[in-house]
Amino acid sequence: MPAPEHETDAADLGARYARIRHRTAALAAPLSAEDCCVQSMPDASPAKWHLGHTAWFFETFVLERWEAGFKAFDDAFRMLFNSYYDAVGPRQPRPQRGLLTRPSLRRVLDYRDAVDARMQRLLARRELDPAAAELTLLGLHHEQQHQELLLTDVKHLFAQSPLQPAYRAVDLPVAAAPPLTWHAYAGGVARIGHDGAGFCYDNETPRHAVYLHDFRLASRLVTNGEYLDFIAAGGYADPRFWLAEGWDWMVAQGRRQPCYWRDQGRAEFTLAGTVPLDPARPVVHVSYYEADAYARWAGARLPTEAEWEHAAAQCVPHGHFADADVFHPAAAPAGLAQLFGDAWEWTQSSYAPYPGFRPAPGAVGEYNGKFMVNQYVLRGGSCATPAAHVRASYRNFFPAAACWQFSGIRLARD
Amino acid sequence: MPAPEHETDAADLGARYARIRHRTAALAAPLSAEDCCVQSMPDASPAKWHLGHTAWFFETFVLERWEAGFKAFDDAFRMLFNSYYDAVGPRQPRPQRGLLTRPSLRRVLDYRDAVDARMQRLLARRELDPAAAELTLLGLHHEQQHQELLLTDVKHLFAQSPLQPAYRAVDLPVAAAPPLTWHAYAGGVARIGHDGAGFCYDNETPRHAVYLHDFRLASRLVTNGEYLDFIAAGGYADPRFWLAEGWDWMVAQGRRQPCYWRDQGRAEFTLAGTVPLDPARPVVHVSYYEADAYARWAGARLPTEAEWEHAAAQCVPHGHFADADVFHPAAAPAGLAQLFGDAWEWTQSSYAPYPGFRPAPGAVGEYNGKFMVNQYVLRGGSCATPAAHVRASYRNFFPAAACWQFSGIRLARD
Amino acid sequence: MPAPEHETDAADLGARYARIRHRTAALAAPLSAEDCCVQSMPDASPAKWHLGHTAWFFETFVLERWEAGFKAFDDAFRMLFNSYYDAVGPRQPRPQRGLLTRPSLRRVLDYRDAVDARMQRLLARRELDPAAAELTLLGLHHEQQHQELLLTDVKHLFAQSPLQPAYRAVDLPVAAAPPLTWHAYAGGVARIGHDGAGFCYDNETPRHAVYLHDFRLASRLVTNGEYLDFIAAGGYADPRFWLAEGWDWMVAQGRRQPCYWRDQGRAEFTLAGTVPLDPARPVVHVSYYEADAYARWAGARLPTEAEWEHAAAQCVPHGHFADADVFHPAAAPAGLAQLFGDAWEWTQSSYAPYPGFRPAPGAVGEYNGKFMVNQYVLRGGSCATPAAHVRASYRNFFPAAACWQFSGIRLARD
Amino acid sequence: MPAPEHETDAADLGARYARIRHRTAALAAPLSAEDCCVQSMPDASPAKWHLGHTAWFFETFVLERWEAGFKAFDDAFRMLFNSYYDAVGPRQPRPQRGLLTRPSLRRVLDYRDAVDARMQRLLARRELDPAAAELTLLGLHHEQQHQELLLTDVKHLFAQSPLQPAYRAVDLPVAAAPPLTWHAYAGGVARIGHDGAGFCYDNETPRHAVYLHDFRLASRLVTNGEYLDFIAAGGYADPRFWLAEGWDWMVAQGRRQPCYWRDQGRAEFTLAGTVPLDPARPVVHVSYYEADAYARWAGARLPTEAEWEHAAAQCVPHGHFADADVFHPAAAPAGLAQLFGDAWEWTQSSYAPYPGFRPAPGAVGEYNGKFMVNQYVLRGGSCATPAAHVRASYRNFFPAAACWQFSGIRLARD
Repeated sequence: MPAPEHETDAADLGARYARIRHRTAALAAPLSAEDCCVQSMPDASPAKWHLGHTAWFFETFVLERWEAGFKAFDDAFRMLFNSYYDAVGPRQPRPQRGLLTRPSLRRVLDYRDAVDARMQRLLARRELDPAAAELTLLGLHHEQQHQELLLTDVKHLFAQSPLQPAYRAVDLPVAAAPPLTWHAYAGGVARIGHDGAGFCYDNETPRHAVYLHDFRLASRLVTNGEYLDFIAAGGYADPRFWLAEGWDWMVAQGRRQPCYWRDQGRAEFTLAGTVPLDPARPVVHVSYYEADAYARWAGARLPTEAEWEHAAAQCVPHGHFADADVFHPAAAPAGLAQLFGDAWEWTQSSYAPYPGFRPAPGAVGEYNGKFMVNQYVLRGGSCATPAAHVRASYRNFFPAAACWQFSGIRLARD
Repeated sequence: MPAPEHETDAADLGARYARIRHRTAALAAPLSAEDCCVQSMPDASPAKWHLGHTAWFFETFVLERWEAGFKAFDDAFRMLFNSYYDAVGPRQPRPQRGLLTRPSLRRVLDYRDAVDARMQRLLARRELDPAAAELTLLGLHHEQQHQELLLTDVKHLFAQSPLQPAYRAVDLPVAAAPPLTWHAYAGGVARIGHDGAGFCYDNETPRHAVYLHDFRLASRLVTNGEYLDFIAAGGYADPRFWLAEGWDWMVAQGRRQPCYWRDQGRAEFTLAGTVPLDPARPVVHVSYYEADAYARWAGARLPTEAEWEHAAAQCVPHGHFADADVFHPAAAPAGLAQLFGDAWEWTQSSYAPYPGFRPAPGAVGEYNGKFMVNQYVLRGGSCATPAAHVRASYRNFFPAAACWQFSGIRLARD
Repeated sequence: MPAPEHETDAADLGARYARIRHRTAALAAPLSAEDCCVQSMPDASPAKWHLGHTAWFFETFVLERWEAGFKAFDDAFRMLFNSYYDAVGPRQPRPQRGLLTRPSLRRVLDYRDAVDARMQRLLARRELDPAAAELTLLGLHHEQQHQELLLTDVKHLFAQSPLQPAYRAVDLPVAAAPPLTWHAYAGGVARIGHDGAGFCYDNETPRHAVYLHDFRLASRLVTNGEYLDFIAAGGYADPRFWLAEGWDWMVAQGRRQPCYWRDQGRAEFTLAGTVPLDPARPVVHVSYYEADAYARWAGARLPTEAEWEHAAAQCVPHGHFADADVFHPAAAPAGLAQLFGDAWEWTQSSYAPYPGFRPAPGAVGEYNGKFMVNQYVLRGGSCATPAAHVRASYRNFFPAAACWQFSGIRLARD
Repeated sequence: MPAPEHETDAADLGARYARIRHRTAALAAPLSAEDCCVQSMPDASPAKWHLGHTAWFFETFVLERWEAGFKAFDDAFRMLFNSYYDAVGPRQPRPQRGLLTRPSLRRVLDYRDAVDARMQRLLARRELDPAAAELTLLGLHHEQQHQELLLTDVKHLFAQSPLQPAYRAVDLPVAAAPPLTWHAYAGGVARIGHDGAGFCYDNETPRHAVYLHDFRLASRLVTNGEYLDFIAAGGYADPRFWLAEGWDWMVAQGRRQPCYWRDQGRAEFTLAGTVPLDPARPVVHVSYYEADAYARWAGARLPTEAEWEHAAAQCVPHGHFADADVFHPAAAPAGLAQLFGDAWEWTQSSYAPYPGFRPAPGAVGEYNGKFMVNQYVLRGGSCATPAAHVRASYRNFFPAAACWQFSGIRLARD
């Protein structure tokens, strides 16, 4: 839920709406109707569902409330494209989103077009209710989250195919990685959370004091080459490096390398197809368990989210984002790098409410708060995140076993 | 596997090939690429997979052996469209057939066209090897089996959709059902199994003697109305009617009516959409457990497959088949009726080899024999079976829990 | 359910009752209260439960009906020790029989003593109702079945223990096995089923005609040494030998040898502890899948139950039974051997009702009939079966995956 | 792992050892060998295993290192009674601890006696190595943890029995509960963690600064009566009160009340048997999900562990502990009450390492650190905890779904 903000005048908002909505459709363009329909695991959604659900969001939370004489595009879509909003009503069970061969992709794109036209008419109003503007803004950030999920869900789907298809067959950039160095930060009372300027989700608020202890942060993400060393040193064979639950997970899954590595670490499945593993690029698609095990083996630990945010708030948020249309992380430049973009960074922090947290009233209050258990916070955005979407205070979160996101490892030390 | 037969001269075979292959494509025509791609449960296959696999059968078992300079249409398809032939090589795991968004439906149809053109060139040869003709004939019967599965698998998929789409929106015929009467047969040594004229599968051979005891057979299938009586009499609430395993299955599934019934038996999902339940039509999509429970409640039993075949061999095999393009059973006419068509009839016979059974040599020997455990024989064909496909000796088989086929109930008594 | 018989006068019955009931307690004597309490898998029951349930049988089906002023020993036992008789009432769920640390073993033995005293008073009556005598006789055969299950369930429990304890530490006899020879039988109409003299279960009736084809039967059971040859020849690595469902079972279980073999077939866990594998002894504890795979590899097949009974009915039923107090099969003597005792013999016959089968009226009608699906018939008894318990018409039955019984392999050929 | 401490002279330690070890045996005394053997779920261990494992701890971590000429009591026990120490070697899988009918309870008690005698000889030495004293002290705290688990695991076992047996049939005290009031605490930098005097586990260290925000704490635990109000208000029927994962858990389990409530909240299963539900007593055996849902419904939240410790450190740790031999919580007295004893209090804090946490070197370093994921911290001890075992800095932890501990609810507010 957005904190109040008044920067967004209606003209800006309409252009921004058009730009972001168009980007979603452009990301789906390389996909066939079949690619858009199938669900490869319960946690991943079909691209068609992402396309429909993001339109549903605007229809449900903006049009239905502010459009005069509102009539739903299709009554059945109210339920089909609800994700998890109990206050809105029933919904298609998540693991069965892939059974929706109807409506067709064509009709879902029509749905998007119709919603867009109606939204633009609404946004063009002189007297737009600030609450409508805020929910529209929330919807656009929501849309960007689903842009990233669309990419990671398609990657998971294609990774299951014996054909190992490429989503976008580009040559991935090649570069060497600089040596890892440590950046020191002094402890004391610090403040984290969003400070009130610009959009944020409700889970980033309120800004509040925390007590930090002296810590050091690695200059860049852990590379494939470093992770290969971990494996060569028996990383997947020695329970001392692992959380007990992580060890059990690893054994039960038969996991012996990151989930998209192929051929004993000689190759890697990417959105550009299967390519030789580049030791300079960041290791990605590791679970929290793997990230934690690597850190223990390396004599380090994962940062807390407060440590991470404290360091990141002092950086300019530039990096390798989805905007580059190269949906794979690249080797780090020199200096303190990759805090933003390339890969989401697992923190050791469980996803929990900030002191004084209040979910937004109404259905959008279900956006964040009800997921605050048994998930871990990731920070910084990835090569699949729109650059304008992240910020230092942004809190992403996934269960410890999740590895289909572009999740990587930044080390910390006391 | 076909018993040897020499009736099929090459010209006939080419025409028959074209007719049957065209029918498969015609059955898929009402479906979108998305409809053809998705797998709604591990036992059901996507329509696209049926289309590809049936082409693969001819490519693998006929073209590869008899076509000069054979080259596979696409090497990847060798594995993607293998069903269960270990002797041929690896295969896409059955529960993951629905993940194949690539190749596209378009490309699979191209595959079919290419195989058809090459098959017709082969069949047009003056000196066609009889073994090639026999395997082609086997492939056509195989194709017809998959025509039926395509329909039942699509029905299962559509039944999962909140939209409950119709595959073919026709008006189902309405008629009254005649009273059920009993037809008596005298016991003694009888002979069952295929007698050598015309095509049959290997599992129908050899023809052999069996000893039958006096029995009576119901004149028609059990109707929806009769099954409603069973439910009203507490059929799903009294363990005395059920096999112990059936009772556990029913409780675990939360099943209280046949799987495609809706709204407490007031409506039924069909390939023509959801329609009011017609009490005169045969009950279909019941499991073996339900068929057996109904029979006990009715003071009867299911026939053995030998009893069924002995009775059916004396009938002309006419009935309501897929050829009618009405893919739902109809009310029975008077007299001994519905032995063929309308609904497959569960027998109490476990699927087992006939005395002296020998699987065919080579990979097609895997067609039937390796499934002879924990399945029950169904007889007579259904409204989704091509009329030319069944015969009195035909043995269909499914596990006792299966209910997505057009399976119905014919009663027998001592 | 027993066929009517009138041979059992009350005096005989009382002595027989005492003898068989005492034997059960004697079989449990080597076990501690702890050994008797634990359940090692859902299909196996604790020895204490067997002890209680067999007393419950007499209390429920005999005393309650014929004892004047009947009062249950303990009301709670009515439910705790009901196995699967829905007509009697609710019951402790089978997978939770091992949670019954109360009542204690001591109290269950008291229950047995009390039931025994009351039964003896009843049986001593001059005017004993023949129906009471028949149900008592049924109860004694039921008791003998549970004697065998007590042994096989304890074997399963002890096999799970890292200590691999012996139930009865005896030296197993050592002898060579004679070469396997084939015994030929001519086909034609034969009769199987119980013929009316002496006790039988309802599932052995009615005696009826069957048509047999010429067949041959192996002279003895398959030995450990022969089964080692099967493994050495890649038996567990080649899907061509296996039923498709059997192959899947084997892979899913990680099974590469019979379930109680140890150390790559060099040793075997027995009720006398872990001993070196003796190649001359029959292989036991194989599933139906393994028995069928072995037979295919050996160029043979499993017999039907009708073939087995036809052959066995011509033999004197002697062999190695539980009465020998050596609860492991021994090497075969020369000639047609081991049809009775040593190991139950998997047949290829699914467990189904005989033509004209009628379950007994009342609760004991649940004894057999409701299990007639997805199970396979085993014949002949084992080294854990009381000698007086089996006969040529006796039908034992287990699911295809079961291997904790003393199940072995007799080959047949056309 | 203990922080270094030197207070414990050997004489004291010997007496303390005797006292605590004797208490464990006394807690097992009301149980039969059968009660001590069975495992009612994978998370619970048999009492016999607790008895053996706690002896194993002293044998493995103290005797083996400091006893001259050490020889294991029984080599098999090294593996049987290892819990989760990978550095020590292999172990009996946790879900199969209940299969150990051997060794007998008698022999495990002998094991305890032998270890005790040898430990007392060691502790009586003049020159006892301080490290041995520290590990002995750790072993005694470890023993006390298992005393509590023995009680909660037996409670779970008995709760599964249709007989609902009492562990200790006492009359539970009856009293009214005072109104709930709120105690306010001012925010700022505070310090939590153990301060160096007396024993603590490694997970309580190092003591460190945290930043607290103003908060209020409820004066007592939530009562059964208050929880009944929550249920009556639709608490289990409205997803708005629940974490999404908690709602799914509740629906999947069919949970509609705390796990040991019976008869729609009219009765409660306790270690004294099933008793009428007393509205004044604290609600116990709630999961984290239920605790969180209750708090949301009540317009409050769960405290963080830092808030809890900050408040508790200002209290004298008195309350209703296991020492009272009444193993059920009682109604609260007036004032700030029940912070210690009665029920463990769920905090909203995920179990994580304190800043600068270092696990102890050696195998006992596995005691705590490797469980720091997907668990939530509980504070204060319960009616099943020895009074001398807890302290303000003590951190207990369980997964969010766990409810077989005496876990209750203390509310907090901003």
